[in-house]
Amino acid sequence: MSKKPRAIGVDFGGTSVKLAVVEGAELVSDEHRIPTQDFKDSESLIDRIVAEIDVLRSAFPAIDAIGFGVPGSVDFGAGVTYNLTNVQGWSEVPLRDIMKEKTGLPVVVDNDANCMCFAEWKYGAAEGFEHVICVTLGTGVGGGLILNGDLYRGSQYAAGEIGQMSIDYEGVPGPYNNTGALERYIGNRQITEWAGRLYDEAGVTRPEDTSPENMAKLAQSGDPIAHQLWKNVASCLGSCLMSTVYLLNPDAIVIGGGVSYAGEVLFQPLRDYLENSLTSECFEHLAIKHARFGNTAGIIGSSALALSIS
Amino acid sequence: MSKKPRAIGVDFGGTSVKLAVVEGAELVSDEHRIPTQDFKDSESLIDRIVAEIDVLRSAFPAIDAIGFGVPGSVDFGAGVTYNLTNVQGWSEVPLRDIMKEKTGLPVVVDNDANCMCFAEWKYGAAEGFEHVICVTLGTGVGGGLILNGDLYRGSQYAAGEIGQMSIDYEGVPGPYNNTGALERYIGNRQITEWAGRLYDEAGVTRPEDTSPENMAKLAQSGDPIAHQLWKNVASCLGSCLMSTVYLLNPDAIVIGGGVSYAGEVLFQPLRDYLENSLTSECFEHLAIKHARFGNTAGIIGSSALALSIS
Repeated sequence: MSKKPRAIGVDFGGTSVKLAVVEGAELVSDEHRIPTQDFKDSESLIDRIVAEIDVLRSAFPAIDAIGFGVPGSVDFGAGVTYNLTNVQGWSEVPLRDIMKEKTGLPVVVDNDANCMCFAEWKYGAAEGFEHVICVTLGTGVGGGLILNGDLYRGSQYAAGEIGQMSIDYEGVPGPYNNTGALERYIGNRQITEWAGRLYDEAGVTRPEDTSPENMAKLAQSGDPIAHQLWKNVASCLGSCLMSTVYLLNPDAIVIGGGVSYAGEVLFQPLRDYLENSLTSECFEHLAIKHARFGNTAGIIGSSALALSIS
Repeated sequence: MSKKPRAIGVDFGGTSVKLAVVEGAELVSDEHRIPTQDFKDSESLIDRIVAEIDVLRSAFPAIDAIGFGVPGSVDFGAGVTYNLTNVQGWSEVPLRDIMKEKTGLPVVVDNDANCMCFAEWKYGAAEGFEHVICVTLGTGVGGGLILNGDLYRGSQYAAGEIGQMSIDYEGVPGPYNNTGALERYIGNRQITEWAGRLYDEAGVTRPEDTSPENMAKLAQSGDPIAHQLWKNVASCLGSCLMSTVYLLNPDAIVIGGGVSYAGEVLFQPLRDYLENSLTSECFEHLAIKHARFGNTAGIIGSSALALSIS
């Protein structure tokens, strides 16, 4: 009886590192968490991650590979991390080779948006599609691409930065002086502020909480200003996704991340936007789906990626 | 002595069909031209093309394949043309199979922007690059993509429509109700009109001719308004190309078409725009080049494509 391949997936986040043993799309162990702020440098955090991996491996001895999903730039070919968002001391860390040496297992390191995209394509909302655009809506806007049935990475492994694409050539500056960067319109904080402005403009008292989460609840309960907000968000996101569809002609778009939990109050105007602005040829063959995996996308995707490559 | 592969390349344009025998990047026969307006339907034009192909084959008997580049949508898999721009009667014509039957040769049919892109990648400015964005600037704005060392076509063979990407989510409508479509800012006619407006706004008498061609000459001779025009064009084009670079992280951008003959008055502000708005990681590994082939790109690209596939 051949056993199913198993990997440890490590989701490296700004506040904690989460890891678990994964088989297919299922976590077969508990999820272990390490708070990143307890560690001053990459060496001490790596030692702690190795210790947690050892704990997992003593309970699950047959581990085939380890995958890391990290929040920032990765030289995928070399397995080296660069400038991780909200994590100090991780510039030019050869994480793959360090972990290979310390664990004796094949190790893969990729950025978190690619891991999410791979998880959705391998086991989730994008299963069976050939050309997929994945978007994560949160503090920033991230993305990953499946093209011709494989992760597309580009020449410096930097592809998929949907949040840095421009929706207005005369708009607000993005983090790299990229005028009109999508994430400066529909990032978590920007949505919160936009909501406040809409109430002010309408002469209506602001609700105490204008976070995307609460604005989704308000829209669902019929608040017209909250509906307008999501329509505006859908126009910004829709404009950018329309551009990606004209460029790449995908067969699926998968949308995840905290803001996507707004659900239909976002998805309905977004579908309308795309239907009205794409050729029928492109729109009719395009699935627009909510991501299957939430907080576990990083662990599942990084482990799946590790198994697919090792 | 093995002979070099030879194909007939057919460049199907709005005003004429041009064809020639091609070996590598060289036309080895004269270029034959058939004016399209002489023909009322696809059947009679196809018969005439076949007659010209027969003339070419009697002079060059060893032809291995025939390639067609057509101005509009193509179902590449089926070899069927749809809605060719400025050519009546070509909706749903199974051009590949008709030509296969009439000539007995392998036939490939693709859209003209893909042919241009393939020519540049195989023999031109993009030779040796892995991930290439090709743009043609003319009446409209077209595009083609080489990703992972091959033409990327997308799920309905509709990828590469750079001219339909949005540069302004609140901008002017495009041909498919796609708000902010790039080609509605920097198409030939739009540049001509924009130039006129710039002179009016500056209170300066318009030159008689504000076509891109003349505006390039004026900029080269130091006209500040003409320079401003090309800077504006570079901002629009640059915004869109910046977005494609964040999405695809290519190693080369190739720009061709009539408007691109403006040369440095366009390319210099364009390079500046991209340098200022991309991460250094992406910009430093990005070549920005003028297309090698002009009017012959369609013939060379379609024949090269035919030989690569047949």
